[in-house]
Amino acid sequence: MAPNSLHKDYPWTSPNAPLVVSAPMMKITMGRLAVTVSAAGGFGFLAGGFDLSPLSKDLAEAAEYANSQNVPLHNGVLPIGVGFQNWGSDVRMAVEALQNHPVAAVWFFAPKQLSDLIDWAKTIRAFSEGKTKIWVQVGTVAEAIEVAKTTKPDVLVMQGSDSGGHGLAQRAGLLTLLPETVDALAAEDIDIPVIAAGGIVDGRGIAAALTLGAQGVALGTRFLAAQEAVISKGYQNEVLRVTDGGTNTVTTTIYDVVRGIHGWPKAYNGRGVVNRTYLDAVHGMSEQENVERYKETVDQGDAGWGPEGRMTTYAGTGIGLIKVVMPAGEIVRQVRREAIEVLQRSTALYPK
Amino acid sequence: MAPNSLHKDYPWTSPNAPLVVSAPMMKITMGRLAVTVSAAGGFGFLAGGFDLSPLSKDLAEAAEYANSQNVPLHNGVLPIGVGFQNWGSDVRMAVEALQNHPVAAVWFFAPKQLSDLIDWAKTIRAFSEGKTKIWVQVGTVAEAIEVAKTTKPDVLVMQGSDSGGHGLAQRAGLLTLLPETVDALAAEDIDIPVIAAGGIVDGRGIAAALTLGAQGVALGTRFLAAQEAVISKGYQNEVLRVTDGGTNTVTTTIYDVVRGIHGWPKAYNGRGVVNRTYLDAVHGMSEQENVERYKETVDQGDAGWGPEGRMTTYAGTGIGLIKVVMPAGEIVRQVRREAIEVLQRSTALYPK
Repeated sequence: MAPNSLHKDYPWTSPNAPLVVSAPMMKITMGRLAVTVSAAGGFGFLAGGFDLSPLSKDLAEAAEYANSQNVPLHNGVLPIGVGFQNWGSDVRMAVEALQNHPVAAVWFFAPKQLSDLIDWAKTIRAFSEGKTKIWVQVGTVAEAIEVAKTTKPDVLVMQGSDSGGHGLAQRAGLLTLLPETVDALAAEDIDIPVIAAGGIVDGRGIAAALTLGAQGVALGTRFLAAQEAVISKGYQNEVLRVTDGGTNTVTTTIYDVVRGIHGWPKAYNGRGVVNRTYLDAVHGMSEQENVERYKETVDQGDAGWGPEGRMTTYAGTGIGLIKVVMPAGEIVRQVRREAIEVLQRSTALYPK
Repeated sequence: MAPNSLHKDYPWTSPNAPLVVSAPMMKITMGRLAVTVSAAGGFGFLAGGFDLSPLSKDLAEAAEYANSQNVPLHNGVLPIGVGFQNWGSDVRMAVEALQNHPVAAVWFFAPKQLSDLIDWAKTIRAFSEGKTKIWVQVGTVAEAIEVAKTTKPDVLVMQGSDSGGHGLAQRAGLLTLLPETVDALAAEDIDIPVIAAGGIVDGRGIAAALTLGAQGVALGTRFLAAQEAVISKGYQNEVLRVTDGGTNTVTTTIYDVVRGIHGWPKAYNGRGVVNRTYLDAVHGMSEQENVERYKETVDQGDAGWGPEGRMTTYAGTGIGLIKVVMPAGEIVRQVRREAIEVLQRSTALYPK
């Protein structure tokens, strides 16, 4: 296998290092961040979310930024991807937005039912003449096998239970999810590369994902602390402050409730930092009152975040490993270098 | 660092390979399994559980088995460890049992409060003149730091959220828990080796744990499929049958309830395979009725396990990676070999 087996499909990515992807995070990872990650030899995804009405404009801005940075098209497409929350988005609006600015890949996540992705993939492949690759993020071995057999994506993103933001409520961590998925795919003679997501923050996590069978990694939470992230200072400061993500983040649906987002399929919840909204919900506050309190807090701006705040800090359990805000390109280069060093150091311990 | 930095304390363990530990699992990992694991150059733990009344007899049997296998004492102690569920066990009974058959280490877990372990450690160290090392299993960074500063154990076992059986209800997976703990210990200038537990089943998981900063690994679920495990055929068959542990196992307290075990500290629950007991509880069956149904099932023996059964199959999310029952010594040798091969293969991908 090549060091970066996906290099052939995404020729701007570093050939001799693990593929580092920035995961789409709604309203946060937009054009500037995505282009910067790809310019550093990684693969940046712009978050389309579920409401695709701003997507045309977002893509135009991404294209303009790429142009200003002398980041060229590859094979006629922008060297970035777009992420969709399929449960709430419309494939025609997606195509409309992508037509003016086609991209190298789309990342599907959380359809109402997995079979909905078959049509999405068909439509995107047809309009882009196969230039836009199909990535699908799933959270269980069964989902991976079903999607592999029906949607036949170009890449499977396996999302382990340490991820921030939305994911299946019932999931394993990558430590077991990755190797079991890789084995299950092999047993079915299915050759689809697997990208690991959920709890990967630095070179150690990347090295671990590679030993577990991933062909690349997607980092979300880590890029909340990228200079190019579109993120409130209050949110970003929480990412730097919070430690011990196993206890100081929780998976819950209350953060959707207070934000007025109601369409997520039942099997999903979201991981975020414990705050007043969550604690009040646990202690029995009505949803209505919790929503009201949230709305009051929105006006407070950055002061609305923090342990006594009510603004949502979606983040994964790796939040405690993030201590500093850095340029996105530097994050890509640093974690890639670290990963190889960690592998070399770990291997060197054992005599051949 | 040495390949196995713990070899100096446990001189029978393989010096040039990752340290492989069999975790104590109540009533399942007893003398024969523990001795066999240690004889293979690993470190086997006999499960003391919380009711220590059979421990003297269990240790006598372990000693006898060691003798029959020509497994010698090291430094005057049996080359195995004993695990305690501290919330329900008595340190005087522990010492009484250990006096006739001292062991190389004790493994503490789940005290009513962490500070209880200070006295446990002091007592065991005093009676054994330091020959019995103190291992403490915790589940968060904060717990690790507190225990490191107060109990000052010889080893910290970090238990990630993919573990089977009991653990903290709120926890991260090893992917983030391990590196953050290692960093936090280093920041406090604390030099205590860390063993990774929770979701490690094969050489890939071991390789991952090593890259994340562990000095060794503890496997639980994998040894449920050891020939030397004291386990019903019904239970063991479930371990082989079940796949996709992220969805087919759950963390719950209902399996304690039906078994009549009520002393676990509130912060803990247990991960086991989804069965009728769990589904009935979710659908509103009263605890009393669930207990009655469980009691009826106990009489069915091996037939009481399975998706429609009520007997508990405690297991981690890695259950889907286990396909075959093997001798415990062969498990130790296989995963150790695999781990080094995986590290070498992963590293060889990237040019120096």
